[in-house]
Amino acid sequence: MKKQHQTNIRAYKSGGFIGKYQKLIRDVVIPYQYSVLCDQAPDTEKSHVIQNFINAGKALRGEDAADGFYGMVFQDSDAAKWLEAAAYSLSLFPDRQLEETADNLIDFIADAQDTDGYLNTYYTIKDKDKRWTNLQEGHELYCSGHMMEAACAYFEATGKDKLLQVMLKNAEHIYRHFIVEGHEGWPGHPEVELALMKMYRITGNEHCLALAEHFINIRGTDSHFYEKEAARRDWSVWNSNPSDLDYTQSGQPVRRQSDATGHAVRAVYLYTGMADLASVTNDKELSDACRRLWESITKRRMYLTGGIGSTVLGEAFSVDYDLPNDTAYAETCASIGLMFFASRMLETDIDSEYADVMERAFYNTVLAGMQLDGKRFFYVNPLEVIPGISGISPTHRHDLTQRPKWYACACCPPNVARLISSFGKYAYGENEDTAFCHLFADGEITFENGMKLTCKTDYPYDFHVSYEIEKGGRLAVRIPGYSKTFTLTVNGNKASSTLEKGYAYLQVNDGDAVTLTLDDTPYFVYPSSKIPQLTGRTALCRGPLVYCFEGVDNEGDVLSLSLTDAQPETSAFKEELLGGIVTLTAGAIRKEGTDSLYTTLRPSGKNCRAVAVPYYTWGNRGENQMRVWMNEA
Amino acid sequence: MKKQHQTNIRAYKSGGFIGKYQKLIRDVVIPYQYSVLCDQAPDTEKSHVIQNFINAGKALRGEDAADGFYGMVFQDSDAAKWLEAAAYSLSLFPDRQLEETADNLIDFIADAQDTDGYLNTYYTIKDKDKRWTNLQEGHELYCSGHMMEAACAYFEATGKDKLLQVMLKNAEHIYRHFIVEGHEGWPGHPEVELALMKMYRITGNEHCLALAEHFINIRGTDSHFYEKEAARRDWSVWNSNPSDLDYTQSGQPVRRQSDATGHAVRAVYLYTGMADLASVTNDKELSDACRRLWESITKRRMYLTGGIGSTVLGEAFSVDYDLPNDTAYAETCASIGLMFFASRMLETDIDSEYADVMERAFYNTVLAGMQLDGKRFFYVNPLEVIPGISGISPTHRHDLTQRPKWYACACCPPNVARLISSFGKYAYGENEDTAFCHLFADGEITFENGMKLTCKTDYPYDFHVSYEIEKGGRLAVRIPGYSKTFTLTVNGNKASSTLEKGYAYLQVNDGDAVTLTLDDTPYFVYPSSKIPQLTGRTALCRGPLVYCFEGVDNEGDVLSLSLTDAQPETSAFKEELLGGIVTLTAGAIRKEGTDSLYTTLRPSGKNCRAVAVPYYTWGNRGENQMRVWMNEA
Repeated sequence: MKKQHQTNIRAYKSGGFIGKYQKLIRDVVIPYQYSVLCDQAPDTEKSHVIQNFINAGKALRGEDAADGFYGMVFQDSDAAKWLEAAAYSLSLFPDRQLEETADNLIDFIADAQDTDGYLNTYYTIKDKDKRWTNLQEGHELYCSGHMMEAACAYFEATGKDKLLQVMLKNAEHIYRHFIVEGHEGWPGHPEVELALMKMYRITGNEHCLALAEHFINIRGTDSHFYEKEAARRDWSVWNSNPSDLDYTQSGQPVRRQSDATGHAVRAVYLYTGMADLASVTNDKELSDACRRLWESITKRRMYLTGGIGSTVLGEAFSVDYDLPNDTAYAETCASIGLMFFASRMLETDIDSEYADVMERAFYNTVLAGMQLDGKRFFYVNPLEVIPGISGISPTHRHDLTQRPKWYACACCPPNVARLISSFGKYAYGENEDTAFCHLFADGEITFENGMKLTCKTDYPYDFHVSYEIEKGGRLAVRIPGYSKTFTLTVNGNKASSTLEKGYAYLQVNDGDAVTLTLDDTPYFVYPSSKIPQLTGRTALCRGPLVYCFEGVDNEGDVLSLSLTDAQPETSAFKEELLGGIVTLTAGAIRKEGTDSLYTTLRPSGKNCRAVAVPYYTWGNRGENQMRVWMNEA
Repeated sequence: MKKQHQTNIRAYKSGGFIGKYQKLIRDVVIPYQYSVLCDQAPDTEKSHVIQNFINAGKALRGEDAADGFYGMVFQDSDAAKWLEAAAYSLSLFPDRQLEETADNLIDFIADAQDTDGYLNTYYTIKDKDKRWTNLQEGHELYCSGHMMEAACAYFEATGKDKLLQVMLKNAEHIYRHFIVEGHEGWPGHPEVELALMKMYRITGNEHCLALAEHFINIRGTDSHFYEKEAARRDWSVWNSNPSDLDYTQSGQPVRRQSDATGHAVRAVYLYTGMADLASVTNDKELSDACRRLWESITKRRMYLTGGIGSTVLGEAFSVDYDLPNDTAYAETCASIGLMFFASRMLETDIDSEYADVMERAFYNTVLAGMQLDGKRFFYVNPLEVIPGISGISPTHRHDLTQRPKWYACACCPPNVARLISSFGKYAYGENEDTAFCHLFADGEITFENGMKLTCKTDYPYDFHVSYEIEKGGRLAVRIPGYSKTFTLTVNGNKASSTLEKGYAYLQVNDGDAVTLTLDDTPYFVYPSSKIPQLTGRTALCRGPLVYCFEGVDNEGDVLSLSLTDAQPETSAFKEELLGGIVTLTAGAIRKEGTDSLYTTLRPSGKNCRAVAVPYYTWGNRGENQMRVWMNEA
């Protein structure tokens, strides 16, 4: 099997369910987020990020840097992520005004770059002497990484290479510091690795590849590096513990790591870079490590919703099977990172398990991260919320019942924006002779290998997917793990396809009409009995969507409900409800309430019907109870 | 109804189940804990507490204080609690050597008292100028309180009043400081209030009563007191937040408090003092507040095991119905404090609900706090333990799978020792004309009202309790809430008794033989559906004992088990098992395991029998799974 790679987003014009979301990002999220970056959004925490770039430019020119730097040490990355999202959106929806805004911002960024290629407003404005003295907390490589991703996206979307040149110069600066001058260390927050791999793929710059390889290879080779680094300097950002190596995935060299540990976003960003490098360099040992870490996450440490990082303490992975519903962290960004990781694993191993996880993370945790109107965001995505406890109890303070607006640490909202706007990159892939359909996304797709097709579907609410083939070739269509049956036809006749690792492969010719029909039957999911929190529970799903039960649909009380095993009913598509959804109705028993905390009287129960909505839509109708995993009657 | 009070421990000679525990305290716990206090216990954290008293005496005499002070700011209280336990033990088991040891320690304590009555080794050795400058964290009143309790107990046990005089002088010092000189504030850790009430009852000293009343009345009257106090000084013990008023139950005057909040031990120590004061002063408003706080705890914030304070964050009460099994804190000391509170509530309201809670806390959480051999102790008492997660996961670090030896903060072990040794005080009470049998405890009891009886029982494993009446009068025997039926006979004939608020009242004559037979049928308990963690679960109990399921009895895996509603079977008494217990065997379904984290295949189940042991015995057979609340099949 030849390796595949993501399909260039430029060739993807989307519609359907995803297209609606992409329009929402264009119409609401990108403009709103830009107003935040400019400190022009009402009732929102100050960002100052664009002014930081302007002020850094002034500082470099010896001018008065006015009001200096404001924000977190990684504030620059907010601009980078916005720019990246804007780039993807421009490739879908050309927009001269947005492009001018982006060009303008790029000018400020370019002005903020030092003559030696260094680029970071925090250090440039506040104290140049602190540069590269705090890799553990300093986020310089993290910010560079995000700006490299933005540069790649903007070049792909517009053909303009000003930011790409800035970031090549920045990469050269980093190369000089770490490789030529041989300074020790690796980034506390991985990100630059996957970004350097993107730079390498687009520019062919060998220093980018070498740098990515360097940071991946050196990570965890000296278990005292952060301690030594801390001892050498007289400042700290957060007084982080330099001996907590798990938090930064630095406990041992990456090739020897087996368990996904520490801060979940850092972990999956690292693994993404590792998988990308392993694919380019055919590094079997690194690839095996990626596979072990993938299994650690997806077979023992992942929520049904594709959420990862179950504990608020360090926003981190916990131990195997420790997956509490109510105190979950499950950061939106971590699920986005899990999609990155899955998409890179697909580069060398076309197996539906990777795209199944991508789809699980996207349609559940990632989409749940954003309010349906695009104006509010969850960072934390619990699988159970009980007003009166969630958000209030000391151990549940982070599990909010309603999405807040914008945080001082604004990582998730722009991450959602860039992910949704670049959905096509995850949905489609290709190699020299095959077009891969990993996810079902309405749109026109032109592959670099010459194939071209139009996908029509109302997935994930309708389970018919049609592909009109304009330019034929070999087509590989994923059959999701949830779909026990499927039918694939070409021009109305049963297709002659071969199934391999969850993909149906078939030859298609110009003008062919291919249709795929997946199983739309709602189904129950049962957890491993090794997950203590989930014994006796079941969850209801349909296709890729995990469903949840909210109080608003169920007499205000979902805790008293247990589900029978009767086959749930599927509603017609409800255009007006929650942005357009299908509800499920399950047989249930509602236990009679009691005033006693504990009683010896077995509560009686009455039969009823329990209504479920897709998890990603929860919390859009005011504060109320929500539960994914229901007791079995 | 006339008020009742605790019966003087001197008149109680115990046997049976409690007697065995009291002998264990005498033979193992008191000697071991004394060796800790002397720093002579191997492999145990340094205590230095006796040396602290010696060094404080030297400092006061202007001699070299040698190795100074060592330990926590409340280190003195370890000696006080040991002394109190030793006193109770002496009243049960006279022991000249132990009494000499105690006298000797009392001499050191007396020497450590300043001429003005001040007594605290931390401040006397380290810095006299810090006295009374940090009521929030300083623990001076807390240490005084424990030493007052020890003084009362030692006087009652031995008739020796040296320590009592020391503590009366100390109380006078405190009275001068807070009442005469009018210094502001109240103790951060309540304890002195209940201790002053004990001093008042024994000595009749009105300043003790006035001081207790003062501290209770002033508490929470100035919501900025701790902030002002912190601003006035240049030191801190733990940098505690002076604005966190809930933690110290200082958010509002105690008469207006309705919810049990903050550090659970502090809370119940405070409420105990409040209830005691309300009883003595006939303070209806204060009594109503106690009742509200009692209901807050027992109707919304208490585990089935009588554990309270469900969150590790602040060792504190959480919000209503937030009662997680696996991340529970449920400190042993807090359940001991709950017994104190319950016993004081009984002073004005003879209602079995108070003694039911005392019994629940004692036979489950308090006893679970100590290993069966008396050598190791739990501070934290979860209702579910899963090796691999418990004690390891970031949110479960405090929930250990095995009892450790001795902590630097050694609150629970001596608290267990003093509680068990004074069990008679909680089991029996009296007023002018009635003898109250609140708990069922084998022993001879002489009441101050002239009544005398001998109780014979193998409770809590045998549910026959006999009372041989030596000197008759009015007898009030509690009928526990769990006992749906009971029979009460006098000399073999059905007794003529009246039942009021869960107590059977009857007249008994000299020489009468009274027998009570309670319901020994195992029963299931069902939780309120408002407790999110317990939906679909049930627990198995017999009498006052909550049972749990351990892996060692159940193929190493209790998570796969769900219980059927078949009537559980009761074993014969197993003398050799876990110190002598009755096991219960319940019908159960064991689900087949799966390697998948999530599966759409409903796991098949096979019928089996699940074996349960009393909760207090868990963790005595090595590390293994333990669960109280089981899924219902």
